[in-house]
Amino acid sequence: MRNRFDRQLVQLNNELIEMGGMIEKAISDTVKALVNQDIELASNVIEYDEEIDHQEREIEQLCLKLLLQQQPVAKDLRLISAALKMITDMERIGDHATDISEITIELSKESYIKKLDHIQQMAKETMVMLVQSVEAFVNKDMDKARTVIVHDDVVDDLFNKVKAELIAMIHEDVNAGEQASDLLMAAKYFERIGDHATNISEWVIFSITGQHPDDK
Amino acid sequence: MRNRFDRQLVQLNNELIEMGGMIEKAISDTVKALVNQDIELASNVIEYDEEIDHQEREIEQLCLKLLLQQQPVAKDLRLISAALKMITDMERIGDHATDISEITIELSKESYIKKLDHIQQMAKETMVMLVQSVEAFVNKDMDKARTVIVHDDVVDDLFNKVKAELIAMIHEDVNAGEQASDLLMAAKYFERIGDHATNISEWVIFSITGQHPDDK
Repeated sequence: MRNRFDRQLVQLNNELIEMGGMIEKAISDTVKALVNQDIELASNVIEYDEEIDHQEREIEQLCLKLLLQQQPVAKDLRLISAALKMITDMERIGDHATDISEITIELSKESYIKKLDHIQQMAKETMVMLVQSVEAFVNKDMDKARTVIVHDDVVDDLFNKVKAELIAMIHEDVNAGEQASDLLMAAKYFERIGDHATNISEWVIFSITGQHPDDK
Repeated sequence: MRNRFDRQLVQLNNELIEMGGMIEKAISDTVKALVNQDIELASNVIEYDEEIDHQEREIEQLCLKLLLQQQPVAKDLRLISAALKMITDMERIGDHATDISEITIELSKESYIKKLDHIQQMAKETMVMLVQSVEAFVNKDMDKARTVIVHDDVVDDLFNKVKAELIAMIHEDVNAGEQASDLLMAAKYFERIGDHATNISEWVIFSITGQHPDDK
């Protein structure tokens, strides 16, 4: 039994790495489509979300099978519970990629009122956070998980910069308001992506220590 | 077998009505907390989201049991598939209630720069849409489902009003920018709640006709 269980845990790790890669691709394509006003790529991201949802279901089924068949306790139980939580956060990242891509399509016919460099930077930072979260889970690396959690401040700071810039633009020119509020929303979704990457690392810490960092 | 299946379908309806009621309460408490700057109620909404998530899992399990044990076809299969999709949209509404309540807590220490009457109206309209969607499902009422879908325009119009007002306020006074962008986000989440209520009614139509209104 134990050997089969170990093999299934390896499979769980592999599926999570796969899902992490899918989410990373979604974020990368999302920001590329946004910056280049590429409607086709934005539509692809929206379609691709179904594959992400499918992968979530697959992992969920695997976790439930493990829970039912193996009735794991302690460390193994925590590992599987953490995996179940992590995939929910990953799936939400996929949803936000879709949300942003809908804004990309909405804005595709007008030229941007500002350079999107900070938003691009936000996307890049969240991708790093996501990759590190998954690595932290697979390697049971507490330090890496903690790095991700601290790193969320970088994304929050970038969001605040974008917000301040957009507010200033609306203040100067009311006609910029419509697009500025759409871009603000896009930035907000990237900020939420950072939050979900943080959540994933918090679950990694829970899976190792049995203590969720948010619990007192 | 058929009798037991019928009883299980009744149970499914009841659980969906229950979840609809939970979501309705979440929206109602969310807007009350926002308008009255009631931090305690906002925190309750955030906690309550776990119960909503739990109810989603319960219904999901029931649907999967029905699919596995009864292997339904045609109409019954559509009904259960629609239920599975509907609960995802309901659960997202719960998430948005949490998103809005986080903004409520964020803004609780400052007085509002504007009356929230349009946002209140948005909340009210989405609650009506949600209740009607669930009624349409239970009574297999196509007309009611169609009414909900059309009614989403009312919510969208309200959102555009709120957006225009907030843009005008930022234009006049840059210091209003921070709060205005938070309120804009809150309004956006109510608008998304309307989208999810619309989705639910689209699944109702699918469950009756086998054709999703979005498909050509």
